[in-house]
Amino acid sequence: MIEQNENTQFELTDELVALVEQLIASQSDTELHTLLNEFHHADIAEILDEVGLEDATYVIKLLDSETTSEILMELNEDNREKILKTLSAKEIAEEVEELDTDDAADIISELPESRQLEVISNIENAAHKAEIKELLAYDQDTAGGLMGKELVKVYENWTVAGCLRRIRGQAKDVKRVHSIYVVDRQNKLIGRLSLKDLIVAKSDQKIADIYIKSVDYVNVEEGAEEVAKIMQKYDLEAIPVVNDNQTLLGRITIDDIVDVIREEADRDYQMAAGISQGVEADDSIWKLTKARLPWLLIGVFGGLGAASIIEYFNEAMGSFIVLLSFVPLIQATAGNVGVQSSAIVVQGLANDSVDSNIVKRLLKEFFLAIVNGFAIATVALFITHFVFGTPYIVSITIGIALISVIIMAALIGTFIPFFLDKRGIDPAVATGPFITTSNDVFGILTYFLIAKLILGF
Amino acid sequence: MIEQNENTQFELTDELVALVEQLIASQSDTELHTLLNEFHHADIAEILDEVGLEDATYVIKLLDSETTSEILMELNEDNREKILKTLSAKEIAEEVEELDTDDAADIISELPESRQLEVISNIENAAHKAEIKELLAYDQDTAGGLMGKELVKVYENWTVAGCLRRIRGQAKDVKRVHSIYVVDRQNKLIGRLSLKDLIVAKSDQKIADIYIKSVDYVNVEEGAEEVAKIMQKYDLEAIPVVNDNQTLLGRITIDDIVDVIREEADRDYQMAAGISQGVEADDSIWKLTKARLPWLLIGVFGGLGAASIIEYFNEAMGSFIVLLSFVPLIQATAGNVGVQSSAIVVQGLANDSVDSNIVKRLLKEFFLAIVNGFAIATVALFITHFVFGTPYIVSITIGIALISVIIMAALIGTFIPFFLDKRGIDPAVATGPFITTSNDVFGILTYFLIAKLILGF
Repeated sequence: MIEQNENTQFELTDELVALVEQLIASQSDTELHTLLNEFHHADIAEILDEVGLEDATYVIKLLDSETTSEILMELNEDNREKILKTLSAKEIAEEVEELDTDDAADIISELPESRQLEVISNIENAAHKAEIKELLAYDQDTAGGLMGKELVKVYENWTVAGCLRRIRGQAKDVKRVHSIYVVDRQNKLIGRLSLKDLIVAKSDQKIADIYIKSVDYVNVEEGAEEVAKIMQKYDLEAIPVVNDNQTLLGRITIDDIVDVIREEADRDYQMAAGISQGVEADDSIWKLTKARLPWLLIGVFGGLGAASIIEYFNEAMGSFIVLLSFVPLIQATAGNVGVQSSAIVVQGLANDSVDSNIVKRLLKEFFLAIVNGFAIATVALFITHFVFGTPYIVSITIGIALISVIIMAALIGTFIPFFLDKRGIDPAVATGPFITTSNDVFGILTYFLIAKLILGF
Repeated sequence: MIEQNENTQFELTDELVALVEQLIASQSDTELHTLLNEFHHADIAEILDEVGLEDATYVIKLLDSETTSEILMELNEDNREKILKTLSAKEIAEEVEELDTDDAADIISELPESRQLEVISNIENAAHKAEIKELLAYDQDTAGGLMGKELVKVYENWTVAGCLRRIRGQAKDVKRVHSIYVVDRQNKLIGRLSLKDLIVAKSDQKIADIYIKSVDYVNVEEGAEEVAKIMQKYDLEAIPVVNDNQTLLGRITIDDIVDVIREEADRDYQMAAGISQGVEADDSIWKLTKARLPWLLIGVFGGLGAASIIEYFNEAMGSFIVLLSFVPLIQATAGNVGVQSSAIVVQGLANDSVDSNIVKRLLKEFFLAIVNGFAIATVALFITHFVFGTPYIVSITIGIALISVIIMAALIGTFIPFFLDKRGIDPAVATGPFITTSNDVFGILTYFLIAKLILGF
């Protein structure tokens, strides 16, 4: 902000948080006002995420609802939930009144169902209320759940001058005019126009003569991730949403899509790391345990499965007991290869860059596994034989086992995400401990079976 | 596109690719024109990514440069490089002439250095040429590398009517008017204005009276990821770029930032999976091997390290040889915990949601590890004793070892990304095979040391 400081970005310092806490403690409302008014609402949200619940609620009740409604939107979800609990339905309705319809619907949908109705009935602006109610009916992960009702639309038979006049009216409710949507008399979307086109045009021209007939749009029931893909692919900053009859219902803006992309990436990343439920670093230990323990248990059961395989072969192994020392080598390699192969497929499926032909993909991974397998087997063979002094036949066994295990892990790692995707399950789940564990177990089994075959115990 | 089809999105089918290939083979230029004109340039790029290099080059030479320049931007990077090789410097200059300055600079920067100069010297529009040269001087991963020169700016002493008149001139070169930037006589950024504000204002008002003084901006040397964070946090669709003197140099638009976010997320995901260099599913086996083999070798050396630990304890172990069976259990658990802990920190560092206080974070992971450790140790103790029939003292050893290993893995997993981040290394590298491998080795060592202590072999 230029006004605040010539050259630096907002920075959340311990001193600033302490100052705010102190001003709250001493109820210095005027100073608080003066201090916080300098900051963007997203910055105030960062400060409130750091102070305690009571302090945050104090600030929310202190500032005017135009600012606090935006602050609420930017707060950490857990903190928002706690603060909303301390507000009355009427107070929440006042906040919601200030928000765009999509944000308003998001806030309300986070409330318990009984409170939702109470808050809605307290919204005074009837049009705003009706629009929010409409939005609440859509599934959150669809275009309908993402869209807002704030848009500027014009009829094709209007003139440029008439348009500009009426847009002045509509635009008051719309923070940013992305596109002007052109509709026919039945409110069907037939094209678009930019504000720039309108300014550049002569004032007596008809909209019908200047509007752009080619317009991207999405159906209200389209999935959120699909909408994100379309907006990215076509570099759109806003996209209109229509129903099956092509009736214009709303618009989705890129800032909401950025959130969808970010959340999707975070979720995939966490799943690959064996963490579920989209937790954050500052969540409670209990929430973090719920998100992490189940995945660890999968690994534990895999480890116990591996133990029974080893026990089974152990007795027959006799003098080849040295094979047991290389179990971690086999396990680590199988796990790493499996994760690599599945990550490539998961990412490819997410951005449509992978050929949907499974056979082609499996063949490619097969060749890749042979290349990597021979390289790794050679390294392992030399080191085990010349450094560890393992008998030649055992080193060869380890080498052959490594190649086989790498091929197997690559194929399993490739197949599982495809399989999950076809079944409608998020394939990202496959990259986590799930794939590592199954590859651990199959890898160790393969290792001993090959050893048995070669060494004949 | 409404024109093309009432209700469906573009879909890349094998039939469509075959049809395009056939039209190219028969040199049916008119039909090709008619067919491809229906599609968005991003869709044509998808088709050209599927056909061979010669066919793609044929289409690029066939269509007019206004379309093909946009197609080039959307092509897979490898394919673009190949096609550009087949074009003359003059032909590339013609494509570049059609592009916005930021896209033009991106394309040129991908060329070998000697060709860059040749292409630049072939650009006819002198202003465009100078702007592109300016942009090429900035580091690609900074605000300067992301920004374009296309923007609409007004002086504070202009009137609204004068502004609209001059904007009509400037706006011809600007595809989308995001914001109008207000500058003083020295071209210093002093505020902003939306097109909407201008339309709503009275035509004889002065800009100085209506412009918004609070404007977000970034310094031209700011890092790309930092710019992405700022634009996300403040929900911006464009941000002006200034130098140290506050002089307005250019603007960055959200579509470029969406690409930065996506690439960053992809890179982190791949690193966590042990894949380097940002490969894609359809890259060559050689490129994929280069990206994957080094990480696998880290795992191999870890496995061999584990083997020497096992061999060392093996001889002394005597009747407690059963301990070897549970090495995979220890290894899997250590690896999984380490990845979970590091992923949380890496993600927290990436979106600033993690407290930068290492001690606090380590303490939290420590308590979390104790909770998870006791749960897992209990499960393992019961199953090994009652299902596997392991002697009680061995089961207890395994349980205690698991708790210790989980704590150790959690602390290492938390510490390493913090450490890398402080040293200026991308902490995401820590979540991959790197952390799994070190935890494998330390985990197995801890396991045997604890066993030696309890069982006294």
